[in-house]
Amino acid sequence: MTNDNFLRACRREDVDHTPVWLMRQAGRYMKEYMALKEKYSFLEMCRTPEIACEVTMQPINAFELDAAIIFADILLPLEGMGIKLDFIKGDGPKIFNPVRCEADIDAIRIIEPTEDVPYLLEAIKLTLKELDGKIPLIGFSGAPFTLASYIVEGGGSRNYLHAKGIMYADDGQWKKLMDKITEVIIRYLKAQADAGVQALQLFDSWVGCLGPEEYKEFALPYTKRVIDEVKAYAPDIPFINFSTNTGTYLELAKEAGGDVMGVDWRVNLDEAWERIGHDKAIQGNMDPVVLFSSIDEIKKRASAVLDRANGRNGHIFNLGHGIVLGTPVDHVKALIDHVHEYSKR
Amino acid sequence: MTNDNFLRACRREDVDHTPVWLMRQAGRYMKEYMALKEKYSFLEMCRTPEIACEVTMQPINAFELDAAIIFADILLPLEGMGIKLDFIKGDGPKIFNPVRCEADIDAIRIIEPTEDVPYLLEAIKLTLKELDGKIPLIGFSGAPFTLASYIVEGGGSRNYLHAKGIMYADDGQWKKLMDKITEVIIRYLKAQADAGVQALQLFDSWVGCLGPEEYKEFALPYTKRVIDEVKAYAPDIPFINFSTNTGTYLELAKEAGGDVMGVDWRVNLDEAWERIGHDKAIQGNMDPVVLFSSIDEIKKRASAVLDRANGRNGHIFNLGHGIVLGTPVDHVKALIDHVHEYSKR
Repeated sequence: MTNDNFLRACRREDVDHTPVWLMRQAGRYMKEYMALKEKYSFLEMCRTPEIACEVTMQPINAFELDAAIIFADILLPLEGMGIKLDFIKGDGPKIFNPVRCEADIDAIRIIEPTEDVPYLLEAIKLTLKELDGKIPLIGFSGAPFTLASYIVEGGGSRNYLHAKGIMYADDGQWKKLMDKITEVIIRYLKAQADAGVQALQLFDSWVGCLGPEEYKEFALPYTKRVIDEVKAYAPDIPFINFSTNTGTYLELAKEAGGDVMGVDWRVNLDEAWERIGHDKAIQGNMDPVVLFSSIDEIKKRASAVLDRANGRNGHIFNLGHGIVLGTPVDHVKALIDHVHEYSKR
Repeated sequence: MTNDNFLRACRREDVDHTPVWLMRQAGRYMKEYMALKEKYSFLEMCRTPEIACEVTMQPINAFELDAAIIFADILLPLEGMGIKLDFIKGDGPKIFNPVRCEADIDAIRIIEPTEDVPYLLEAIKLTLKELDGKIPLIGFSGAPFTLASYIVEGGGSRNYLHAKGIMYADDGQWKKLMDKITEVIIRYLKAQADAGVQALQLFDSWVGCLGPEEYKEFALPYTKRVIDEVKAYAPDIPFINFSTNTGTYLELAKEAGGDVMGVDWRVNLDEAWERIGHDKAIQGNMDPVVLFSSIDEIKKRASAVLDRANGRNGHIFNLGHGIVLGTPVDHVKALIDHVHEYSKR
């Protein structure tokens, strides 16, 4: 690999500079993406390997990123599970048959990735060819809690009433649901490993609606099972365990496993790393909204994150969550260049 | 006062039982409230002292609560500030002239509560008569950051792009805006103290979108000024400093002041109290969504919160945030009765 700084950072090895990639780095803030979006729906783009590959490459061609992440969505496994999904313009994902009762849970099908998401695996292969060993490619999945919440709520949610309803009912249904989703995620990630991705990330964007005890009881065991099984299957592929709003129980999040812990901006990076332990790499954690301020301010705040990492091996610079729609492209470029320059060893 | 357990808990004195009240205890989950809501808009209800008093009393008449909180909204000061507001059915608050530039900030008027929110002060007086010394009445305000966010975003927000935009621009505008809002809040709370409320609470529901350093720089100094000035003015009125999603920097939130720290369910109550220090009382912190589960489950999870308080003086039982629409009324009653029974000294 021409630039393996990202992989080396995942393993806490020496690097030439702090590697940087940005969650949702391929997306609506880029005009190249919007040009494609004029012609295809979001799901069409995901399901057409050539387009998914092209979108994955857009930020790679525009910026000096240290990793690519396959263009996909955490909800792609749903179709194969028998859950009907669409992306409504301006409204985000909408599930037409949310899972609410035991019969719904029983009806969930465990996917066969080669049959159910062949387009994703093909997109990974195409992208690997396109990347030609320049930088690594990251595959990903939603974590069990976040995926379960989507499936049960039927879309975005404020209070997670339905998901927590099943959870707190404490009658075995939550476990049944999570066991099935966990199995789906394990297969989904193993298939991406087989297709050749060089790293994997779990996104647990919604799990922070739980308190620590609820996380321990209702989310952690399933996330842990995913990571344990995928790591046993593909021990050499670094695994990033990312969640948001879990700053009060990073110690628990760590118990779920992963080589790299992804943290959001609600906790200072040095304190987070201290609490997690320096036996893990860490990814993060600038507030994505900083990218809307001046380039000087962006540099100042990115430097502050790098200062907290203090040049220690095992830091991957990223935002604390995905890039926000409307982020100026030249600000993204300035950020990436600054991280490289400022962190040059 | 017939039942002053709440006030004694605020001062960390002995109590007969752990006092309990619930944020948003007067509201849409009660049929008595919905009957009034058929006839009046939300703002009409707030602006008519007799109705605001009636709504405040609805949960007091239905449950054995240890405190009442005046029926009002954190956005009531806006009209006097020259900011046009309405509550759109199903959509929540909508501000028609959000504050986005220096001229908008300059145009903000500092309110005179006796002229601008006379109805609120009258509602407090009516309610005090109605309560007749049975339990204390809490007055409240939004905290500076939360109020600023509303005013700048123009309503609810996902990423706080506009508010953080002013904040990160770092050109003096954020300070100017926050100074004015802080002055408004100080006057608003002092007027409620004058009207006779026996406790005050600041709601900082949105400040958890900030990281610790940003909280320290952009929110804490203003919240602290509010609490310092109001406490100097009315030293005998207990002050509750409540925020959500700030579990990673409770130590900073404490620096802002207050006799009681309100915490949400993302942190275990005993750990939160330990970090804050036992020289403060603590309020919280059951997940409001637990109220949708069975009464057995509610009792179990409420007991778990009480167990973490371990009978220590200074715990006020509450939810970690407001009651959610659709919460079953009999579950609320069961919770309140259980807290009393379980915590009886």
